[in-house]
Formats: sequence, C-alpha cells, structure tokens
Amino acid sequence: MQILLTNDDGIFAPGLAALYQELRQLGEVTVVAPESEQSAVGHAISLSSPLRVKKASLGGGVWGWAVSGTPADCVKIALAELLPEMPHLVVSGINLGPNVGINVLYSGTVSAATEAAILGAEKAVALSLNTYKDPDFATAARVAGKLLSRLQGQPLSAPVCLNINLPALPEGEIKGVRLTRQDTGPLVEHFDRRVDPREHLYYWLAGINDRRDLAPDTDYGALQAGYISITPLHHDLTHYPSLRSLQVLEK
Amino acid sequence: MQILLTNDDGIFAPGLAALYQELRQLGEVTVVAPESEQSAVGHAISLSSPLRVKKASLGGGVWGWAVSGTPADCVKIALAELLPEMPHLVVSGINLGPNVGINVLYSGTVSAATEAAILGAEKAVALSLNTYKDPDFATAARVAGKLLSRLQGQPLSAPVCLNINLPALPEGEIKGVRLTRQDTGPLVEHFDRRVDPREHLYYWLAGINDRRDLAPDTDYGALQAGYISITPLHHDLTHYPSLRSLQVLEK
Repeated sequence: MQILLTNDDGIFAPGLAALYQELRQLGEVTVVAPESEQSAVGHAISLSSPLRVKKASLGGGVWGWAVSGTPADCVKIALAELLPEMPHLVVSGINLGPNVGINVLYSGTVSAATEAAILGAEKAVALSLNTYKDPDFATAARVAGKLLSRLQGQPLSAPVCLNINLPALPEGEIKGVRLTRQDTGPLVEHFDRRVDPREHLYYWLAGINDRRDLAPDTDYGALQAGYISITPLHHDLTHYPSLRSLQVLEK
Repeated sequence: MQILLTNDDGIFAPGLAALYQELRQLGEVTVVAPESEQSAVGHAISLSSPLRVKKASLGGGVWGWAVSGTPADCVKIALAELLPEMPHLVVSGINLGPNVGINVLYSGTVSAATEAAILGAEKAVALSLNTYKDPDFATAARVAGKLLSRLQGQPLSAPVCLNINLPALPEGEIKGVRLTRQDTGPLVEHFDRRVDPREHLYYWLAGINDRRDLAPDTDYGALQAGYISITPLHHDLTHYPSLRSLQVLEK
C-alpha cells in the first residue's frame, strides 16, 4: 500500500515522526510536509510564490520531502510530482491539538486531507490529538495505526476525508469510536490589545474553545467524553435547503 | 444600515473601491481589508503573529482600516474591535476573477464572508467578477448594488453566506440570476518546473479551470452561460450520508 504522510506542524514535528513509525507497518510511506509550521493556514495554497522541495532527514535513515508551502500545497505537489502513483492512503498529522467544530475550517491538518479527497485519493485522513501539552504521540500513533488498519477494509461511499480526533488518554481509557457531525457552535474569542516597544498598538487573537452543553453526537462532544471522533467531511459547501428558499431571487 | 466591506485583493484594490461607491448608497460603510493581496489564502487566520491595524486613505476623503492579516482576520477584528455593533451586511469583494467550484475552498474572498456568517452577521456576501483582465468594476458594482438591495428584503433561513459570481458582461447582456450549487469537479492543474538563476529547481502551480460539460445548476455552469450565480454556502462540512455508512466503525 502506498501512503502519503503530511501535516501542518512541519516535517520535523514529533506527531509526524510517531505516526510514521506506525504507518510503515501498513505500507510504503512517503513523507511530504511543510518545512515550517503552518498551523491555522486553512486551505491556503501558493499561487503568487513558487514552491521549493528539499530532501530532509527525519533520523534513523528516514528521508522526507520538505516543501516551502502549505499543507494543501504539499498534497498537490506530492500527487503531481513526487509520488509514482496515486497513494491508497493520505494521512495528515498527528496534529498537536484537536481540530473540531469551527476550527476545522482553519485547520491546515484537515485541509491537507480535504485536498487529497478532492484529488481522488482512495482514503484521506486527518489525525489530531486532544492536548496542547505533554502529548503522548507514541500512544496516539498506536491507536491511530489500529484504526487505520480497520479503515482499510471499509469502502467510502463518497469523496470525503475523515477528520479523526484522538483523546489524550491512555489506550485503555479511551471509551471507543464515535461517528460524529462537526460542531457548529461559535468559538469564544477575543483580541488581546498590546503595546509594542515603540508604543504602537497591536492585536493578538486569543480565546478558548470551552463550550458547554456539547452534543454527544458532535466531534467536540464525543472527544470531550473520551471517545475517538470520526467525522466525514466533504468539499461541497452548498447549503441545499437555502437553494429553495432563495429561488425567488431568480425572478 | 451598518455595512462592513472587505476583500482579499487588498484595501487598495479597484474592485473594493467600486463596490464602496455603491454600498454607500445602501448604508454606512466601514472598510476593513488586508493591507496587501491575500488571494488563495483560504480560511487562514493569524495565530502565531499579531495583527496591526492602520488607517488608510482610499481617496476622496474616504478612510478604511488596513489589517496586516488575512480576509478572515479582517472580519474577526472588525466585528470584535473596530465596529460599534454587529453589521447588518458584510460584503467581500469585488474579487478580480471568479470564485466557483473547488476554488471556493481556496478563496480568501469567500472565507471572509463565511467568517461573517459564522460570527452571526445577518447577511454575508462574497462578490467576484468572472474575468482576470480589463475588469469593468463600475458595471459589476452597479449590478451588485441592485442585487444587494433586493437581498435586503430576503430573510435567510440558515447561517449561510452567499457566494455571488458576476459575469463580465455589459449589464444588458446578463441573462438573469441563478441559484446554484457549488461545482465539485476537479481542477485541471499541473506544476511548472523551473530553474532559478542559481540552477536550483523550483515548482509553480499552474493550471486552468476549463471544465467541459458544466451542469447549468452549478455556480460555474450558470456563470459561463451568462447568469449571475448565487450559491448559499455553509460551514458545517459534515457529509451526513457517510455517517451512516461508516457507523460500523463504532463497533
């Protein structure tokens, strides 16, 4: 099985290294990832600037391709130029921090997997771990590896990517797997106002994702309850019910 | 009526200036836009770097706020810090070039409108003109102004943004308005391989969006046929049919 591994935390991120060790047991893995951190770049692609591709040592005799672009760029150039054939599986992650709810739209991790689904990869998966500190990527990667093995036998009925979020728990404490919808509740955000050394004002986006009353059938709700959350995401953003209600504008 | 005007081509783009002249006839317009071009940034937001906000003269005594960030950043900071109240209408554009099909995912123009819908703006609209050369933004803005007037009386039944693409035609030659779905066909892309002055290889994404057999009920199809295309877009990316087919993974 041909596997493409990418991420948005950059090619030297520990979440990618841990996942590589599991994926190599499933097939032949090619790493094509951003040369630097690309968090929250969403589905950005590079049009105004070219891409550089450099060979990068990942240690232990493993080599990957470091790309001077975004996660979506990495998938595009990997499939167009770097891989001999369309991979069976494209995996993005493991991201440091969850990608649930509205944050899915900002996520470079998820966008890489979405791009792979758009381009026709058989399976496209984004993997994120629900913690920002002291991540145990070895455990997360082991859990992810088992899940990806199960996914192999599972055909998809549509060109979706699977957005998988893993609880930051010991393997035995994970309660199971939940198929979930994306939570659409707004984030709790604000801007810090700060003053620079030259006394000019600047702003920094701050905020937390601490919604209450999380529905258990959402990505966020399932993750908080200790389940692995799997959300199938597609790239047709049309809101079909509104098509009918707005039809009057055609008159 | 309070109106927020933004874009992804940058605050000094002629498409924004033309639209401003029309919007001022509909209400009080505040311009908050990127200080430089931000095309194809998708739904990127700035987390690792702060935002600067500078007053910028748009000529004719008009002032706006230039933000050192992405279109989504502009909407976030406008609503959180720069506007006295939630605007009734948020408009992003007029973009130089169409935003239809898969390109919707890469579009900064659309992402600004999506962000406004997420944050609860009553109406959020992205406007794009179907040409890359010799754009007649004055005509496009006049057509857009009339459409936005009609939209005012049209309640939305869900938190969607309206992705509006305008034909690059004289007003009398536009065939009408079509409510459309997003085309999901793949783009025709490739990477140019080039060699820099120091003889290093680099890649540049090239490609065209020239699909045949365009369905007339899609954004791209309607636009090519000479209609104004309006596509309601939402930010719940869940592919609900796949939830059922993958439920076996919960076992």
